Amino acid sequence: MLEDLKQKVFEANLLLPQYNLVTFTWGNVSGIDRSRGLIVIKPSGVEYDQMGAHDMVVVDMDGNIVEGKLNPSSDTPTHLALYKAFPNIMGVVHTHSPWAVSFAQAGVSIPAAGTTHGDYFYGDIPVTRAMTEDEIIKDYEKQTGNVVVETFNKNNINPDQVPGVLVNDHGPFTWGTDPVNAVHNSVVLEEVAKMAYHSLQLNSHNIKMDGVLLDKHFNRKHGKNAYYGQNKK
Amino acid sequence: MLEDLKQKVFEANLLLPQYNLVTFTWGNVSGIDRSRGLIVIKPSGVEYDQMGAHDMVVVDMDGNIVEGKLNPSSDTPTHLALYKAFPNIMGVVHTHSPWAVSFAQAGVSIPAAGTTHGDYFYGDIPVTRAMTEDEIIKDYEKQTGNVVVETFNKNNINPDQVPGVLVNDHGPFTWGTDPVNAVHNSVVLEEVAKMAYHSLQLNSHNIKMDGVLLDKHFNRKHGKNAYYGQNKK
Amino acid sequence: MLEDLKQKVFEANLLLPQYNLVTFTWGNVSGIDRSRGLIVIKPSGVEYDQMGAHDMVVVDMDGNIVEGKLNPSSDTPTHLALYKAFPNIMGVVHTHSPWAVSFAQAGVSIPAAGTTHGDYFYGDIPVTRAMTEDEIIKDYEKQTGNVVVETFNKNNINPDQVPGVLVNDHGPFTWGTDPVNAVHNSVVLEEVAKMAYHSLQLNSHNIKMDGVLLDKHFNRKHGKNAYYGQNKK
Amino acid sequence: MLEDLKQKVFEANLLLPQYNLVTFTWGNVSGIDRSRGLIVIKPSGVEYDQMGAHDMVVVDMDGNIVEGKLNPSSDTPTHLALYKAFPNIMGVVHTHSPWAVSFAQAGVSIPAAGTTHGDYFYGDIPVTRAMTEDEIIKDYEKQTGNVVVETFNKNNINPDQVPGVLVNDHGPFTWGTDPVNAVHNSVVLEEVAKMAYHSLQLNSHNIKMDGVLLDKHFNRKHGKNAYYGQNKK
Repeated sequence: MLEDLKQKVFEANLLLPQYNLVTFTWGNVSGIDRSRGLIVIKPSGVEYDQMGAHDMVVVDMDGNIVEGKLNPSSDTPTHLALYKAFPNIMGVVHTHSPWAVSFAQAGVSIPAAGTTHGDYFYGDIPVTRAMTEDEIIKDYEKQTGNVVVETFNKNNINPDQVPGVLVNDHGPFTWGTDPVNAVHNSVVLEEVAKMAYHSLQLNSHNIKMDGVLLDKHFNRKHGKNAYYGQNKK
Repeated sequence: MLEDLKQKVFEANLLLPQYNLVTFTWGNVSGIDRSRGLIVIKPSGVEYDQMGAHDMVVVDMDGNIVEGKLNPSSDTPTHLALYKAFPNIMGVVHTHSPWAVSFAQAGVSIPAAGTTHGDYFYGDIPVTRAMTEDEIIKDYEKQTGNVVVETFNKNNINPDQVPGVLVNDHGPFTWGTDPVNAVHNSVVLEEVAKMAYHSLQLNSHNIKMDGVLLDKHFNRKHGKNAYYGQNKK
Repeated sequence: MLEDLKQKVFEANLLLPQYNLVTFTWGNVSGIDRSRGLIVIKPSGVEYDQMGAHDMVVVDMDGNIVEGKLNPSSDTPTHLALYKAFPNIMGVVHTHSPWAVSFAQAGVSIPAAGTTHGDYFYGDIPVTRAMTEDEIIKDYEKQTGNVVVETFNKNNINPDQVPGVLVNDHGPFTWGTDPVNAVHNSVVLEEVAKMAYHSLQLNSHNIKMDGVLLDKHFNRKHGKNAYYGQNKK
Repeated sequence: MLEDLKQKVFEANLLLPQYNLVTFTWGNVSGIDRSRGLIVIKPSGVEYDQMGAHDMVVVDMDGNIVEGKLNPSSDTPTHLALYKAFPNIMGVVHTHSPWAVSFAQAGVSIPAAGTTHGDYFYGDIPVTRAMTEDEIIKDYEKQTGNVVVETFNKNNINPDQVPGVLVNDHGPFTWGTDPVNAVHNSVVLEEVAKMAYHSLQLNSHNIKMDGVLLDKHFNRKHGKNAYYGQNKK
């Protein structure tokens, strides 16, 4: 079942080591079939070069394994919470990419400091609050997703326009219009984290970009009248 | 038409990923035929390994497509503004290389801190002022070029001796005596940005090099009596 | 003799350059056969691509060469001291990996700053005190091991839960359940050192993770009810 | 003539890009035949993959070309000054490796901060004073060598025990017992510069290692009773 989606999720997982986003097995990608209410996700703790598309695990929206011999990623409940709360996203990625983790451990959001950021993320990439003791002890991975959703709701951030987050003291989650697009957003998040880190060391005052410049760059790529690339010709 | 220039511009674009100057499609190179008043430039949003020399786009000095099936780079009006204002330059490069962007986001010029810099750039590599709301909203990419030109004119910087700039909150543009030379200047700009960053962290006071040493290094490579390399023997 | 262990130790040594943990010959791996009281270790100063499994040196617990034509690593007495004091460890690694050395030279422990760290190390990775003049002059390499053991004893750190240390002004040692596992812990130590360094620059206040979150992450992978990966299914 | 030395110098030059010490042609290696009073050096501005052993240039101790069709490195007079003043050195290397240049531009010596440094350099790697206007204008490259020699003489540093230096606002020179050994010292200098940089950011107070520990490490590798490696068995 879902052979096409398994293949896409498998290939998107292989992009993680290719883009230097993971050490060992520290990352996973999932995709969703919203009409059937099923997600496909990497098995837990399996090395990228030791798995095939047939090893991808199919789970329902409650996290029950529907097909697959292996345990799904231990982060599966986080992916599910994001798919449920953000109705347009079709792929989710989690990694421990080092620049993003450095901000997450510092409890610092990645500021929208320049056009590289604004081309993909329409504003700061927020860091969540620390999780409570209760949230950590009970249903930890599900609560991880909930605290992400809370961060976007409380701050009125549109997850379709800011397709990523830093979980406090943990690391980044990104999402997108399909699994590969979600991986691309992980690559960009890591790159803009690196750039913002160095900008902050050069200029500890406000490095945020002008709001009009942010509007311009986000919308020339993603707005109604987008003119970047070949699609709109 | 312009098959030689297309080939050169195509090959110069391929150098961008080879020198690790770009992520995804975040960079473009152009070249000019000044006798015909035409430039050749990378198509917008196309991956480097998916294109051939025949995909390069020919535009006139007003930005009209003269030949080519694809949209030219969205940065084309910036390239045109530079070619018009700087009469000796024959190639232009734009990237989002991370060290250069870190300075651009911080609004900090790259100081001429040592001989590596002085061998290629005869003084600081300036950062432009922030663009106004009007400049961003109307003819943004053309105004990006204009603010670069303004920076060089106001500060009496010779673009033939300082072949690069940082656009505020955006990133670097470089130019040169041909498209490959312009890419070489991008490589140097990124390398000297990295070095200057670390020098500034080690010594936050003035790290600028002595003016006589700068004269010596720039001129032993580029002056009338240059003696570096094999050409002058 | 010990052909299996020699092969394992040889292969684990080859992982050091593969994971970019060493420059030249700056690292060594050993393994132990506890029933026989023998360890197998890399020969001193031999390049990784110039040696075979048969070049591994067998020494007894007093450091006497039992088999092998080459000198064992000059760090052998340190490995022996660790094997004697930490009864469960089966492999030991020493490198001069740059992020770990940067902390060791600064005399700063690697703080448990996030879940990447907590997945492998149950608390800070300690730095030893500086060695005394006497310790350096007499039996230096053995005393290096002793000061590591003292650090764990004095601070009630369980070496099975914190499988690594920074020797002051020197560099990291790690250990594990076999030689390859010890190398994996070296990779993780280097990666979390890099992340903690950048977190500290972003936020010089306490970046330590919450204790409950540390418990959760360490135990979901290593505790009685571990549920990460495929082993426990 | 000097075919063996040409081959050695050629191969040592090829190590520069292999160890990531150079961008473009920013580095050169020479070797000396002291009995004949001749040095062999890389030609100026020629790319490493475009040259052969036969392109190496032979010059006498006054810098006159004795054999070779190409100009020798423009840094040749600096190499000559070092060979003349330091009678035991048999190879010299100059690069613009980025961590070393960062210290040179900051005017900061590389402190002996740990055993990685002490295994190769018996004390801080000094930075020279800034050169005077006169020194820059007249015989610049020869004066560059002289200011290095002055730095070692004034501070009673033994060039056989500290085989490298940072020329102020310029970059590193290293030397050694043959051209390859000189390159190895360049690799170490770059690596310890990187480590010392990060240690200084973690701990801005004195990060220098204990003098007894420095004695121990330098001498266990280079002293009369050295016991590191296989040579002394």
